[in-house]
Amino acid sequence: MEIKVLKDILSANNRIAEQNRQLLTSKHIIAVNLMSSPGAGKTTLILRVVQTFKDKVRVGVIEGDVSSSIDTKKLSEVGISAIQINTGGDCHLDASMVNSALANLPLNDIDILFIENVGNLICPGGFDLGEHLKVIILSTPEGDDKPYKYPLLFTIADALVVNKIDLLPYVNFDMDSFYHTVKGMNQKAALFAVSGITGEGIEDWGSWIIENLGKVRSVKSEPTKRAEAS
Amino acid sequence: MEIKVLKDILSANNRIAEQNRQLLTSKHIIAVNLMSSPGAGKTTLILRVVQTFKDKVRVGVIEGDVSSSIDTKKLSEVGISAIQINTGGDCHLDASMVNSALANLPLNDIDILFIENVGNLICPGGFDLGEHLKVIILSTPEGDDKPYKYPLLFTIADALVVNKIDLLPYVNFDMDSFYHTVKGMNQKAALFAVSGITGEGIEDWGSWIIENLGKVRSVKSEPTKRAEAS
Repeated sequence: MEIKVLKDILSANNRIAEQNRQLLTSKHIIAVNLMSSPGAGKTTLILRVVQTFKDKVRVGVIEGDVSSSIDTKKLSEVGISAIQINTGGDCHLDASMVNSALANLPLNDIDILFIENVGNLICPGGFDLGEHLKVIILSTPEGDDKPYKYPLLFTIADALVVNKIDLLPYVNFDMDSFYHTVKGMNQKAALFAVSGITGEGIEDWGSWIIENLGKVRSVKSEPTKRAEAS
Repeated sequence: MEIKVLKDILSANNRIAEQNRQLLTSKHIIAVNLMSSPGAGKTTLILRVVQTFKDKVRVGVIEGDVSSSIDTKKLSEVGISAIQINTGGDCHLDASMVNSALANLPLNDIDILFIENVGNLICPGGFDLGEHLKVIILSTPEGDDKPYKYPLLFTIADALVVNKIDLLPYVNFDMDSFYHTVKGMNQKAALFAVSGITGEGIEDWGSWIIENLGKVRSVKSEPTKRAEAS
């Protein structure tokens, strides 16, 4: 019976996620679900993308946290449209939370919507939010063994972003070994090495998102096809 | 009804946790529940404690991971009694998992039992495992704002260990601000600043655990009193 309840919850979540995706696609917005451990640098990377591509795309953010609105404040201070979701104790966002946030964002003024999930390498993996792309961020101080320990997220990712490469001289992180591991688990994922502090690699990663934004918009121009950008 | 089921699960968990604690206390073992984000350095710190106190105490480890047995292998290679628990998808250990592990550890040869919880700053907070001490490890690259975002763990901790202080020159982490924040949330927690790489601070943290081991053992010599070392 417990399993049935869980199935019902997931099936309801998936219905709302599909509604979110259709709304976002119809508004010519690409939604990127950012998932990582706590402190991997999600907000700093968003700020870097905004800075690097400020003349090309408009960014909006949904911020997921158990508690606090520190990151939303940081983003709002530089003029980014950002909505905070506090989950209370929950270890992930769900489609219904995102649906509520969408009603409070200026969707006509956004090209890329980053959804910063709760910092967690486990729980967010089971919940479709209506995003077009799932992006996992791993920071070098966490170590290159994380795909073995938390396989689900690394398997379902559309892209893996290794952040804090500026710390590579000071930590044990073997980039070759990491790439080898994730390629064995997930051949389709795009790989990026970046630094939120120096800005290295942000151009590549942002360009990849913008390329996918083009795909979302081309889907929109053919209304009979389902959004398949992810 | 869902709430009732959750209450039943927690109440069953607490009963088994109490059994675990009584067994451990009767065996003169102090159990330390280590909780942190993925990659904060739990296993490295355990290895450092073993190295620093090898002539004084014998260490055993229960390793919790969603998947893999990388850390158990590391520990076993240097002769530490270690048992791996793979939770499948679960984002925390529970008392029943620990109970099974205890049946497979040489309890007569252990003074300090580290229970390495699943790397997660949210889920482990709700589950008593039968430990005597709850220790939260935060690494400096994660940032000093984590207590605001993940308040539960920081509130219930008996000790907060800031790891990777060797990286302080390269990351944004204000130790004074962090201490101020956690003192406001949790006045009883002991605070330690350590480096698993250089060994700095390990002597202090390990001595604090050994001091608490003494308290667990003094409880044992008065069988009418309940174990209250935590």
